[in-house]
Amino acid sequence: MEGHRSDCPIACTLDLVGDRWTLLVLRDLFFGAHYFDDFSESEEGIASNVLGDRLRKLEQAGLVSRKPDEHDGRRVRYALTERGKSLKPVLVAIARWGVENIEGTRPRLPLDQLYGRSPRAKVRG
Amino acid sequence: MEGHRSDCPIACTLDLVGDRWTLLVLRDLFFGAHYFDDFSESEEGIASNVLGDRLRKLEQAGLVSRKPDEHDGRRVRYALTERGKSLKPVLVAIARWGVENIEGTRPRLPLDQLYGRSPRAKVRG
Repeated sequence: MEGHRSDCPIACTLDLVGDRWTLLVLRDLFFGAHYFDDFSESEEGIASNVLGDRLRKLEQAGLVSRKPDEHDGRRVRYALTERGKSLKPVLVAIARWGVENIEGTRPRLPLDQLYGRSPRAKVRG
Repeated sequence: MEGHRSDCPIACTLDLVGDRWTLLVLRDLFFGAHYFDDFSESEEGIASNVLGDRLRKLEQAGLVSRKPDEHDGRRVRYALTERGKSLKPVLVAIARWGVENIEGTRPRLPLDQLYGRSPRAKVRG
């Protein structure tokens, strides 16, 4: 628990992802962002230095992988790890609360699609 | 949507509650904190000025009520509003992720108790 404020699971999770930008970077990854420019294009306008810092911290936390792009080795490609993907229920709960409680918000996907099917429930082919 | 970074429900929700301290103050309210000192006693050690700021913002957002205590009018009593209580699924999702993904965390309540019964499902008596 080194570096954590307490052994509370809420506090510890927030130590990893609990700022407004980190969770938006994770949101973009869930929606398919992979390259630095993809994140910069989001309408909230994250600054490059903040984005770089948050991606690095997410990588250190094992939530995001950072690899050379397989088609263009000079480009870096970011992706959610399995651990990162497991944060989906947190983002879904936040999205649902926003849609239900803040007037004027528009989900990028219909909520039932956002909830989707959990990876574990995939139909075997 | 004035003051919001976008019309994304995730971004808008994080504009209200998306920092590490605000969500811990909400956690304490869910666990029964009502007076200024209750929050200060939490092991994360929130500073008084930060606590005062976050409680004021939560009140402005309609998530927390602030009233004179009914037994001692000189004390101020804070409580979750119905809108504030509706954030429970967000905190539960965060708590569950922490328990499952961060070694050494200990939930203050067993998770099934934390999930509890939704207020809408109350048995009519």
